[in-house]
Amino acid sequence: MNFCSHCGQRVRFAIPEGDDRLRYLCDGCGTIHYQNPRIVAGTLPVRDGRVLLCRRAISPRKGYWTLPAGFMENAETTLEAAARETWEEACARVEVHNLYTLINLPHINQVYMIFLADLKGGFAAGPESLEVAMFTEEEIPWDELAFPTIERTLRHYFDDRLGEVFPLHISDIGEEDRERYFGSA
Amino acid sequence: MNFCSHCGQRVRFAIPEGDDRLRYLCDGCGTIHYQNPRIVAGTLPVRDGRVLLCRRAISPRKGYWTLPAGFMENAETTLEAAARETWEEACARVEVHNLYTLINLPHINQVYMIFLADLKGGFAAGPESLEVAMFTEEEIPWDELAFPTIERTLRHYFDDRLGEVFPLHISDIGEEDRERYFGSA
Repeated sequence: MNFCSHCGQRVRFAIPEGDDRLRYLCDGCGTIHYQNPRIVAGTLPVRDGRVLLCRRAISPRKGYWTLPAGFMENAETTLEAAARETWEEACARVEVHNLYTLINLPHINQVYMIFLADLKGGFAAGPESLEVAMFTEEEIPWDELAFPTIERTLRHYFDDRLGEVFPLHISDIGEEDRERYFGSA
Repeated sequence: MNFCSHCGQRVRFAIPEGDDRLRYLCDGCGTIHYQNPRIVAGTLPVRDGRVLLCRRAISPRKGYWTLPAGFMENAETTLEAAARETWEEACARVEVHNLYTLINLPHINQVYMIFLADLKGGFAAGPESLEVAMFTEEEIPWDELAFPTIERTLRHYFDDRLGEVFPLHISDIGEEDRERYFGSA
């Protein structure tokens, strides 16, 4: 951020009076530009013991497999966002059930929210996917998953399936998890 | 948003190619300025059957009672945000337990996440609170609560306490719930 989005003046990066964090401040109009984490909402679509995965057609991680998920938009709910992303990336309708994983990624300011869902009807690659397919546990391409959040969600799922109970799992992804996927920065 | 925060040019509000939503676009540097919902994280601190509430010292809803909660910041987890807000608003340390309510407010682009917590040690009014106090169910100032999200979380809590099971409750706040608190716009 270089300029105030309200008045167009150059901003400075400093701690506002009464605050304890660095913010972008506009001395022209007085606006404090807060920046906050974004929610990535998606689903784990299941049918007949198989899970749906999408192979990414776009960066980052083009060519790698992911669950359908993406940035939640304004004016929608988390469930609507999860179902919309599933429709956009996999052309798949789902019946969304419980929130299944909530994963914090504080170093990139994201919170993943993946809902367990039943796949209804067909599926196909949307514009952001190269292909969409169903996988048994044995068929999952573990070495070709796009993000650590996806691997963690899938591992929870196959573990929980043994007991047929699927509680919410809350966890964090740290730098070390990311380095395993992307190398160190 | 009037100006591009990257290059300072005036932005326009239009649907980018390949998208289906209105965004702020900069024709100068090509930046698309996405806007996304924000997370409000907080706790429901409990001790000896009483819950902690804060009376707001700031707008909106100054003078009304709320649970300690506020906007999640970059570089923190949802649990850290909830505990930090509890410390800032009520000078209270908590042991944070399960995520208890997840409430979507699509018309104001917010997602509330309230965690059940045990209050540890003392409490006092932080700079954003006029006072902080503990309430039994009978003592809750139902007509002086700040937001519908707070009322809903408290009602779930006292209902669930009858069975001593506190599952995650996911719901939405609509215009009609807000009008009951704030009148129609």
